[in-house]
Amino acid sequence: MNRQIVLIGRPAAIPGPEHFELRTGPEPLLPDNGLIAETVALSVDPAMRGWVSAEANYLQPVALGSVMRSLGVGRVLKSAAPDWNEGDLFYGWTGWQDRVAISPEAILWRVDESLAPPSAWLSVLGLNGLTAVKGFAAFARAKPGETMLVTTAAGGVGSIVGQLAKRSGMRTVGLTSASKCDVAHDRYGYDIALDYRDVDLAGALDASCPKGIDIFWDNVGGEIADLIFPRLAPGGRVIQCGTASIPSWSPWPEGPRRERDMVVKRLTWSGFLAFDGDDHANEAALATLRSLVAAGELNHDEQCVVGLEQAPAALAALYQGQNSGRIWVKP
Amino acid sequence: MNRQIVLIGRPAAIPGPEHFELRTGPEPLLPDNGLIAETVALSVDPAMRGWVSAEANYLQPVALGSVMRSLGVGRVLKSAAPDWNEGDLFYGWTGWQDRVAISPEAILWRVDESLAPPSAWLSVLGLNGLTAVKGFAAFARAKPGETMLVTTAAGGVGSIVGQLAKRSGMRTVGLTSASKCDVAHDRYGYDIALDYRDVDLAGALDASCPKGIDIFWDNVGGEIADLIFPRLAPGGRVIQCGTASIPSWSPWPEGPRRERDMVVKRLTWSGFLAFDGDDHANEAALATLRSLVAAGELNHDEQCVVGLEQAPAALAALYQGQNSGRIWVKP
Repeated sequence: MNRQIVLIGRPAAIPGPEHFELRTGPEPLLPDNGLIAETVALSVDPAMRGWVSAEANYLQPVALGSVMRSLGVGRVLKSAAPDWNEGDLFYGWTGWQDRVAISPEAILWRVDESLAPPSAWLSVLGLNGLTAVKGFAAFARAKPGETMLVTTAAGGVGSIVGQLAKRSGMRTVGLTSASKCDVAHDRYGYDIALDYRDVDLAGALDASCPKGIDIFWDNVGGEIADLIFPRLAPGGRVIQCGTASIPSWSPWPEGPRRERDMVVKRLTWSGFLAFDGDDHANEAALATLRSLVAAGELNHDEQCVVGLEQAPAALAALYQGQNSGRIWVKP
Repeated sequence: MNRQIVLIGRPAAIPGPEHFELRTGPEPLLPDNGLIAETVALSVDPAMRGWVSAEANYLQPVALGSVMRSLGVGRVLKSAAPDWNEGDLFYGWTGWQDRVAISPEAILWRVDESLAPPSAWLSVLGLNGLTAVKGFAAFARAKPGETMLVTTAAGGVGSIVGQLAKRSGMRTVGLTSASKCDVAHDRYGYDIALDYRDVDLAGALDASCPKGIDIFWDNVGGEIADLIFPRLAPGGRVIQCGTASIPSWSPWPEGPRRERDMVVKRLTWSGFLAFDGDDHANEAALATLRSLVAAGELNHDEQCVVGLEQAPAALAALYQGQNSGRIWVKP
């Protein structure tokens, strides 16, 4: 029997345990040219809020009554695919379940346990790392001495972007919750880590970025971004990687118009998803990540939640900022 | 004696004749290494609203009591500059006045009357043309068959951008006032020209851009832009060239948040000014414009207003969309 976490309701804003149900399905059947695998590490991602929303974004909404979409690391139990053998590990679209029938097209890449444990392939060697490396390479136009501000600086992507910027000689300023300022500074190398709930965040930003902000890597949008835009330097680059602070887009929220900032400061604002680009771009980014991890030059932290049934609560905790390090579920 | 149009008040929104005064000043004195010139054509530009605002944007505000800032074409009367002789024509920062004492640093480039009359050097061979060519080259990433939407499509910049896009094999859709739809289509080559005041502009956009909008060249911002963003195609490029529809930024206006569009559609939104970049970039753009004009391959239209004293009224008419073709003043 195969335990599965199934979506049973659509949240108005943040998904919680009430929107999911643990069900038991039959053992999966081996697909033509596909695999059956057991999951050994399952991902819990900020993007999941978008995936369970009724409104399609870059992926179709997860259907009610179906297994929750997630990335995960699987170990092959049976293979009908030419390149895969029993015992091989992969990173791909497993869903929140114990076992998965999967086609090779739904696999992102092989997992090499000799480099890092499976859970690391959900984060620094997974989509978080890919997002950071590809976005930074494509849009940051980093110059030594410039100031980069990152929101959710201690998160899965922010923790890596901060380290990449520091390696490029930038000054890095991170916004995170008060309890994570130390780790942002000590582990992820931020020159300054600020509590995003600071009652005088505007003053703290002015003091931290006296010459303005050259690159704004934004995972949150909303009112935090509204404080950053007036502090962008001429020629500034904004990299929109997420909208975590905005719980709902129905009704569509309003905010300060950006047109004047865009022209007067000659800004470039780029949105992107790590999925974009071709396999070659992904392989190049992954090669960068592998070499940094092998050299011990990328700090990353994780928090393991044991038990498939804990996945919905882990997701809710993520949105409350209660996790320390990248959260994952060991089924 | 030298007639001058002087700024005497700051408009809350649109400048009008009441904010200016015709004064008579002394004959200008020849500056060290500089020139004295008579103005033969003076520019009337949408950007002037920003220049007379109390709030600095990319240039300092024009001071109350000083000659209104403008570009113009001047003919050298006396020269103390090594490269300039009596009778030479130039395009530069003359201000709204009959005569000007000017240093070579305030001159943009020489005017060649054998190619086009002085007034053309205020528009297609001036800042409008430069804006169109540089912005299109830097940010459009034009692909044949894609759809480009341009606001103020019959204006000084929009009329040129539309023709550049058409030459690149794009489908072009222009928004302009009802009275200018014909010229936008017939003279500037827009495949479709739409009245921006159409009561069902949303429906007209849907019908005109069935595959979405790949490039949005925006000179206006505001509510028109709010109709365009939802219709941008994935990978769309937004080029912010002006904010003409927004009369005041105090208090700062609000509008729909863009963060979600930026991420989900992987947009790139770039703001720019034609002044940006180095002399080499300007020379390259000007060479492009010269060759297109020489070959008769860029249509451009102008409307002459005679009399320096008419300049403030001409500026007001510009904001009311009453001009047909690029407006200029013959002092």
